[in-house]
Amino acid sequence: MSGSHLDHHAGIDAQAGQAAKQGLPVLSDPVAVAQALIRHPSVCPDPGPAQQMLADMLTELGFQVWHLPYGEGAERTPNFFARLGQAGPHICFAGHTDVVPPGNEAAWSHAPYAADIADGVLYGRGACDMKGGVAAFVAATARHVAKGRDAGSLSFLITGDEEGPATYGTVKVLEWMAQEGQIPDYCVVGEPTNPAIMGDMVKIGRRGSLNAHISVEGVQGHVAYPHRADNPVHRLLTILSALQSQPLDNGSDWFEPSSLQVTSVDVGNPSTNIIPARAEAKLNIRFNDLHTGAGLTGWIQTVCRQHAPSAQVTVRISGESFLTAPGRETDALVRAIEQVTCRTPKLDTGGGTSDARFIANYCPVSEFGLVGASIHKVDEHTTVADLETLTRIYETFLEGVMA
Amino acid sequence: MSGSHLDHHAGIDAQAGQAAKQGLPVLSDPVAVAQALIRHPSVCPDPGPAQQMLADMLTELGFQVWHLPYGEGAERTPNFFARLGQAGPHICFAGHTDVVPPGNEAAWSHAPYAADIADGVLYGRGACDMKGGVAAFVAATARHVAKGRDAGSLSFLITGDEEGPATYGTVKVLEWMAQEGQIPDYCVVGEPTNPAIMGDMVKIGRRGSLNAHISVEGVQGHVAYPHRADNPVHRLLTILSALQSQPLDNGSDWFEPSSLQVTSVDVGNPSTNIIPARAEAKLNIRFNDLHTGAGLTGWIQTVCRQHAPSAQVTVRISGESFLTAPGRETDALVRAIEQVTCRTPKLDTGGGTSDARFIANYCPVSEFGLVGASIHKVDEHTTVADLETLTRIYETFLEGVMA
Repeated sequence: MSGSHLDHHAGIDAQAGQAAKQGLPVLSDPVAVAQALIRHPSVCPDPGPAQQMLADMLTELGFQVWHLPYGEGAERTPNFFARLGQAGPHICFAGHTDVVPPGNEAAWSHAPYAADIADGVLYGRGACDMKGGVAAFVAATARHVAKGRDAGSLSFLITGDEEGPATYGTVKVLEWMAQEGQIPDYCVVGEPTNPAIMGDMVKIGRRGSLNAHISVEGVQGHVAYPHRADNPVHRLLTILSALQSQPLDNGSDWFEPSSLQVTSVDVGNPSTNIIPARAEAKLNIRFNDLHTGAGLTGWIQTVCRQHAPSAQVTVRISGESFLTAPGRETDALVRAIEQVTCRTPKLDTGGGTSDARFIANYCPVSEFGLVGASIHKVDEHTTVADLETLTRIYETFLEGVMA
Repeated sequence: MSGSHLDHHAGIDAQAGQAAKQGLPVLSDPVAVAQALIRHPSVCPDPGPAQQMLADMLTELGFQVWHLPYGEGAERTPNFFARLGQAGPHICFAGHTDVVPPGNEAAWSHAPYAADIADGVLYGRGACDMKGGVAAFVAATARHVAKGRDAGSLSFLITGDEEGPATYGTVKVLEWMAQEGQIPDYCVVGEPTNPAIMGDMVKIGRRGSLNAHISVEGVQGHVAYPHRADNPVHRLLTILSALQSQPLDNGSDWFEPSSLQVTSVDVGNPSTNIIPARAEAKLNIRFNDLHTGAGLTGWIQTVCRQHAPSAQVTVRISGESFLTAPGRETDALVRAIEQVTCRTPKLDTGGGTSDARFIANYCPVSEFGLVGASIHKVDEHTTVADLETLTRIYETFLEGVMA
């Protein structure tokens, strides 16, 4: 990218002037918007004014903003929904203004809230996760609005608790949106989905996740007399072998094979000649759309009962798998990425969870944002070039999907 | 048994008078001898005068005694070898004068060193393991000596460190005996071998024992990206399953099948979404005469290398298996047991280890003593009747084997 990344946009001078008057950055400039957001620290669950500043930007662009805080006391979570226009298709940008803590600030080469730019790189907590992505949303919207088209409508779903328990964030806003008839036709979450280079990857779903804890009681005894004891370690090993012995599946159209990982086995027996009384294990399953949390729970319980009738099994389902099968809107996003980056993104369903899992219960959703390599780390950063690239992709997507 | 358990023995009055003069109990009375030994506390490694009193008893019976202390400082262990006569066959009684600590003395219904007799039961630490057995040795010897036969010769191999590391006890005395040409033709160890009733069981061998510690290093990572990690728990589970999957054998002529028990598996991973970097396990194998410690060690190492090339395996062989196949002397012991108890003992090779494992390297050895149900517990005890029964069995055995 050249030094000036606004020179190809006309007709936004009036808007820029207006924003400057209110202490806001130039809204069509994603770098300026990202710097302004980073400079308002907002460690989860967002106690700072970063989210209010974002609401002010959208108000400035003509959006109606509904502030939707949920939770009480220390759990109080600021969120908002903002909408511009009523025509279809209704495209929603979803994201969060909270960030994870900076960790050891002394280890940063640039102060985490200074938003310094050095050699074309913008440093700061949230630079790519995801104040940078939100800034690209804002800048793309500003450029789109400046074109004065009538087609379609735009909204923002913004939470202050994506990095935390996410109890009073996106879930609650979606309930409100459903009640108010504000569910969009398609949603783009601005999480940093690209592993290394802009245009690498769009997420169109995620695997489900569950955690199981298995505890097997046996009968303690001396190793010399195993027939008088009942070794719970052997029962547990048999259970874990049975759970592990075959792949859960071979993958599906859009998903990698499901994966079961035993994360801990714990007996804690200090003696070499005693058969212990109890053995415990923990495991995690990341599962695709060939499974459900309930189905896997039943399977684990059946295997445990088969080899240790008194085994205690606790399963917590963190989330079911979800998928937005490619269609008109995702195609438009892929075309926008190809047009701006000359790369064809992989449509992926791997990796960890995001708020997209909640949105998928209401409407089609995909995720596309910056390069995520530095998220949650010291010296989180994005290039200035990537911020402009992402802004152009979002802008091109809006143009395409609303055509 | 009637109150007087000596009334069938003649010709020992002079001996009894002699012993009484020196403060020794009547040596042909196993109850009096056991009480005298119990009343000299001698918690391992035997700091008390119990062993000296035993040596005095044997001197009184005409034995030559060699005091053979080994080890220095805190490890100094008193032991002795005593021999009476030079003719063959040379039969050795082997035992120990040390006892395990009493534990909570307040929990005993009779003080652990009082050697109280109540309702025909003798209480005290060592009553059956094995001051009672040693007392029956002494009494049987006294009765045998009183008969004035010429055939055969008798010896005692006595250690003060059977309940401890056993480093400076029987092992060292056996080395001395070999140097001095004092290895017997047959040895009886007076450990309490009967599970419930006198005459139940003779031990003619023991399984070997080894302990293995397996540590597997992997590559830590997030459960959502298992292909970027290397789960050491899975590798360890595969190893343990392979080691466990088939019986080691189906037993042999005199041995139960060998047994492998995994005693602990430890990962200690507190996180549910992290694949840990390391997993460890401990196992014990009790193996029969179809295996050797070295052979099993090689097998464990091969299985570990197969599934986790970098696994670290540490094996400690506590003892090899050994067997004294039934022959003339063991037959004589069995016939003595049948004659006195009207029971045919099982010839067994199960259970834990004793000093017989060391003796087996030099000569045939069997083990037969009191009922062991109360050993190492509060209120350790034997019945007065069992002490007399065991004395008669030893006496009858000597008569038979020296005939």
